[in-house]
Amino acid sequence: MTLPTRVKIVDVGPRDGLQNEKQPVPAAVKIELVQRLQSAGLTEIEVTSYVSPKWVPQMADNHEVMSGIQRQPGVRYSVLTPNMKGFEAALADRPDEIVVFGAASEAFSQKNINCSIAESIERFAPVVEAARAKGIYVRGAMSCAVGCPYEGEIAPERVAYLAGLMKGIGVQHVGVADTIGVGTPRKVQAAIEAALQHYELNDVSGHFHDTYGQALANTLAALELGVWQYDTSVAGLGGCPYAKGATGNVATEDVVYMLQGMGIDTGIDLNKLVDAGAYISAQLGRKSGSRVATALLAKCAG
Amino acid sequence: MTLPTRVKIVDVGPRDGLQNEKQPVPAAVKIELVQRLQSAGLTEIEVTSYVSPKWVPQMADNHEVMSGIQRQPGVRYSVLTPNMKGFEAALADRPDEIVVFGAASEAFSQKNINCSIAESIERFAPVVEAARAKGIYVRGAMSCAVGCPYEGEIAPERVAYLAGLMKGIGVQHVGVADTIGVGTPRKVQAAIEAALQHYELNDVSGHFHDTYGQALANTLAALELGVWQYDTSVAGLGGCPYAKGATGNVATEDVVYMLQGMGIDTGIDLNKLVDAGAYISAQLGRKSGSRVATALLAKCAG
Repeated sequence: MTLPTRVKIVDVGPRDGLQNEKQPVPAAVKIELVQRLQSAGLTEIEVTSYVSPKWVPQMADNHEVMSGIQRQPGVRYSVLTPNMKGFEAALADRPDEIVVFGAASEAFSQKNINCSIAESIERFAPVVEAARAKGIYVRGAMSCAVGCPYEGEIAPERVAYLAGLMKGIGVQHVGVADTIGVGTPRKVQAAIEAALQHYELNDVSGHFHDTYGQALANTLAALELGVWQYDTSVAGLGGCPYAKGATGNVATEDVVYMLQGMGIDTGIDLNKLVDAGAYISAQLGRKSGSRVATALLAKCAG
Repeated sequence: MTLPTRVKIVDVGPRDGLQNEKQPVPAAVKIELVQRLQSAGLTEIEVTSYVSPKWVPQMADNHEVMSGIQRQPGVRYSVLTPNMKGFEAALADRPDEIVVFGAASEAFSQKNINCSIAESIERFAPVVEAARAKGIYVRGAMSCAVGCPYEGEIAPERVAYLAGLMKGIGVQHVGVADTIGVGTPRKVQAAIEAALQHYELNDVSGHFHDTYGQALANTLAALELGVWQYDTSVAGLGGCPYAKGATGNVATEDVVYMLQGMGIDTGIDLNKLVDAGAYISAQLGRKSGSRVATALLAKCAG
């Protein structure tokens, strides 16, 4: 089995991560975090979300953050746009990429975005069309692609169904997201293979949560299918809203450490990345969710 | 690639785990922990160590623990015996298996057991001979098989060298141990392949630490080579003596969760195992090192 020789990491910490931290973070800190991530070699960063501040107050500073970051050539800045209103607001801030957030689980779609899967696709369709007309790349997040907090296990057929709908409205790339971290290697591979029924390997990424400690094993399993793009979150920012005190997004540091150890190029400087994680962890007054960062910083201190 | 359909887990929590916890644990608690582990379906438990209490005061109660446990048919009880004196003391307590603890790193051997690798083999030889004469199975731990806190990376040739020495004195089984958790999947596979130069697949096990979060990915990599025996530690007991506050032994719960999710039989009841981990964590007054236990217990509480 030939593994990819190069992997692209999308750090979703500033958006997916900070949105799920209890503590609000000032825009200046978010801007500094983005700066540190790009200095560490990240080439794509999910920066913020254009949703109603009534629902997600943590992202109310989207314009301030997007207009405050010092854009670096070669780095892509993506933002979440759940509907036309959000997309129009985002447009002024010139994102390189937008993300529409769907779910493979009906119950999760209803509880998370207040509509059925089919309705969510109807809502995304004009957003996708408008984005593509402007030359903005469109990524679709397929949440609960392995398990759902309400429905339990999700069959690969449901992932294939959602991927087909996403393809139908012109979404260019899909992320297979194990939102609650219950996936194990073979189940994750089955979910990815379901996405590959509608998308090419170059247009599929993995987004694994470490809630049950499985994220790196699942990343290895995805690498073995040739998947070379992953969403991760510096310092494991985000936590898990479905299990208090548990881990959420896999830490970027842990994934980069594994890839480096396997001789797979990420273009990321691990030490600078650990520094970025230490910075935001200190700002939040919490421990890093990265085992690599914890081990490396303990070694330095000891 | 065909994965094993069945995996045997050796829980090393009572010995390897508790030996590395700062807090001393009463013999009665250790006995109760062994009881809970075997009730959960563990078929091999590393119970204690016969070393000088001057060096390892945590294991001074070895006789009390070994004679206090209620042995269950079909369960194997193993103990560490670093030398003849230890072996003779262990003999009275009728272990099913003894473990001699070597290192693939010269510096680690010197610092950890005060002799060179070659000298350690000389010291183990009469122990192995005596054990085999009594029909006691002999396992050899090959610590620092991937990396060493003093020497850094360890070449697979050094693992092959140690495995050859172990084979030469009659050790029946070797464990490839990533003692400081720095290994990543391909490096771990190389270390296992080195052991396989001298031992058959049925006589090689994996012992991975989760210090850098890599243990489950490394377990998956080892499964892909056909390795079906693993040392793990309930609740991740043990910590890492080389990085304060960092994780040590991979948690049994996390490995069992992955294997169950992959349809691989372990014979272990995950709920009872989580209970055993919660019991010993409460006794130590610390959080479980298992992400699975943390997630499952948080879900129950929430």
